[in-house]
Amino acid sequence: MDNYIKLIHGNGGKDTNHLIEEIFYKHFNNELLVNSLDSSVFKVSQGKMAFTTDSFVVKPLFFSGGNIGKLAVCGTINDLVVSGARPLYLSCGFIIEEGFPMNLLEKIVHTMGKICKETGVKIVTGDTKVVEKGAVDGLFINTSGIGIINRGYEPKPIKKGDNIIVTGGIAEHGTTIAIERYKMKVKGNLKSDCMPLTKVMDKLEKHISSVKLMKDPTRGGLATALNEIAQFAEMDIHLLEEQIPIKKEMVSVNQLIGLDPLYLACEGRMILVVDQNEGQNIVKEIRKCEGCEDAKIIGSLVNIGSAPTVFIETFIGGKRILGPLEGAMLPRIC
Amino acid sequence: MDNYIKLIHGNGGKDTNHLIEEIFYKHFNNELLVNSLDSSVFKVSQGKMAFTTDSFVVKPLFFSGGNIGKLAVCGTINDLVVSGARPLYLSCGFIIEEGFPMNLLEKIVHTMGKICKETGVKIVTGDTKVVEKGAVDGLFINTSGIGIINRGYEPKPIKKGDNIIVTGGIAEHGTTIAIERYKMKVKGNLKSDCMPLTKVMDKLEKHISSVKLMKDPTRGGLATALNEIAQFAEMDIHLLEEQIPIKKEMVSVNQLIGLDPLYLACEGRMILVVDQNEGQNIVKEIRKCEGCEDAKIIGSLVNIGSAPTVFIETFIGGKRILGPLEGAMLPRIC
Repeated sequence: MDNYIKLIHGNGGKDTNHLIEEIFYKHFNNELLVNSLDSSVFKVSQGKMAFTTDSFVVKPLFFSGGNIGKLAVCGTINDLVVSGARPLYLSCGFIIEEGFPMNLLEKIVHTMGKICKETGVKIVTGDTKVVEKGAVDGLFINTSGIGIINRGYEPKPIKKGDNIIVTGGIAEHGTTIAIERYKMKVKGNLKSDCMPLTKVMDKLEKHISSVKLMKDPTRGGLATALNEIAQFAEMDIHLLEEQIPIKKEMVSVNQLIGLDPLYLACEGRMILVVDQNEGQNIVKEIRKCEGCEDAKIIGSLVNIGSAPTVFIETFIGGKRILGPLEGAMLPRIC
Repeated sequence: MDNYIKLIHGNGGKDTNHLIEEIFYKHFNNELLVNSLDSSVFKVSQGKMAFTTDSFVVKPLFFSGGNIGKLAVCGTINDLVVSGARPLYLSCGFIIEEGFPMNLLEKIVHTMGKICKETGVKIVTGDTKVVEKGAVDGLFINTSGIGIINRGYEPKPIKKGDNIIVTGGIAEHGTTIAIERYKMKVKGNLKSDCMPLTKVMDKLEKHISSVKLMKDPTRGGLATALNEIAQFAEMDIHLLEEQIPIKKEMVSVNQLIGLDPLYLACEGRMILVVDQNEGQNIVKEIRKCEGCEDAKIIGSLVNIGSAPTVFIETFIGGKRILGPLEGAMLPRIC
């Protein structure tokens, strides 16, 4: 195998096939992928299906806690999970810059294969394009995914008093990327929360009738996702700042760089709206998952004032409006 | 709406939503898309499904006969069609360079919406990323697609004597892109063949039991696709050069620029392997579709020699081996 990606690896002929067999099939190996011609073909049962897509342009490609490949697989898996679907199959499209080191590509592909194995998800169809030096910044990945809706889950009417749960500490992915971009030297346990939410999904199964809505707070962070939930519910949200799980290190770094962690992306967290009678039980269940030990009820739904609004009660007892993200934020965090 | 794409259009907050509503929803408008949260959710019946993906990095973004958006929608539709599937839903991921003109984006999105309307295919889920100036060359699009396998179609055992059909003139897309890239001034009817193959699919329906394999000759052109068919069939292929439909203008331009049209991409053609008793009837049927008037039987399957090989009998009666694409070819043709 060559040490670097060349334009001929994208020619659609012998060299492309060589790359596919030596790198992609090696790590994504499954019958559907290997036997696919122009599409992957599989059986489906009658039911409801979820379909989603995301392109990943994160910079840098490798960061504490993950890399673009881990992000690409987890991101699409998590979009399916919060739609109430069991993720089944992913597609994967690579756009690679000429000269990209083959060993880095293989590292990324290896991580993707690892997450697939852990979660039982299969990459069944793919595409590889190579563009000339300067036409893309290293490597971009698109993943699309399909899943089958579990036990007939669907978003349910939201009521006053329903609890809002977050499954772990916030802002960890966004903060980690900021640190790497600003090349800050920081000590402590600072890494991305990037992980698949399939285990949380398993834990939620027996409580699914009490789960009214799920959402993953990626770009725009917790604040933006909660605003979308308020809009969807046509209600206000009342948050308690002191209940929001966030690591001390994350708070300190964000004070230093002047970013608001409420608007920074999570890549392994879920927000849930649940029946208030089941809130504590669901939190207890979620906390059993590795990485979700800090899951908490962070607020509740309240009657709407003039328009759907998220209010936050601060540590010192004040109350302020938490709008959706406006204006500039660190680009290319996912 | 702004005149140019800004980084904040990719922040995942208000500005992203504004872009989505003003540009994407306007042209892709359908209930599944507008009501989707993190995924699009829809019912499926028991059966077989095809799933495929492609990223599009074509340069230039606009060319005679189409643009990157037309290519992105037709490309994925056609991959589903040649898998025997009726295309249903597409996903669509945009990666856009900061400063990209909004009117060009809308032109591209408009074309995508138009092809969707013509073919009855829906874009039901999407993603938009904006990267800083220089991190991507203008605009890249990924489309993934799912379709339902028509009438239980599947690839069938291929036999000696089976006919090979191509649905129209070859090399038109690749040649058009080459002309634009080399900024050649050429007169005549030179444009990309880029089009959806859904109408051809409709015409084939009543003959589907005689269709053994379908393939679209994109990157790597007719020659590479036929080599893949020979491999799949474990047989040799015997082509008749004089039967291969190609416009005179395409021949002349390729003589001038020194490219071999047998290796240049088509983006609106299909190769079929069909039962020899039905070959002529199927050609007659295909020719009824607009753009397929030149459909022809170009060769047949013959017993294998030592390894699956494609032979071509030339105009002057010689016979040569036609290998798969090796080495450099014009990059970024799709």
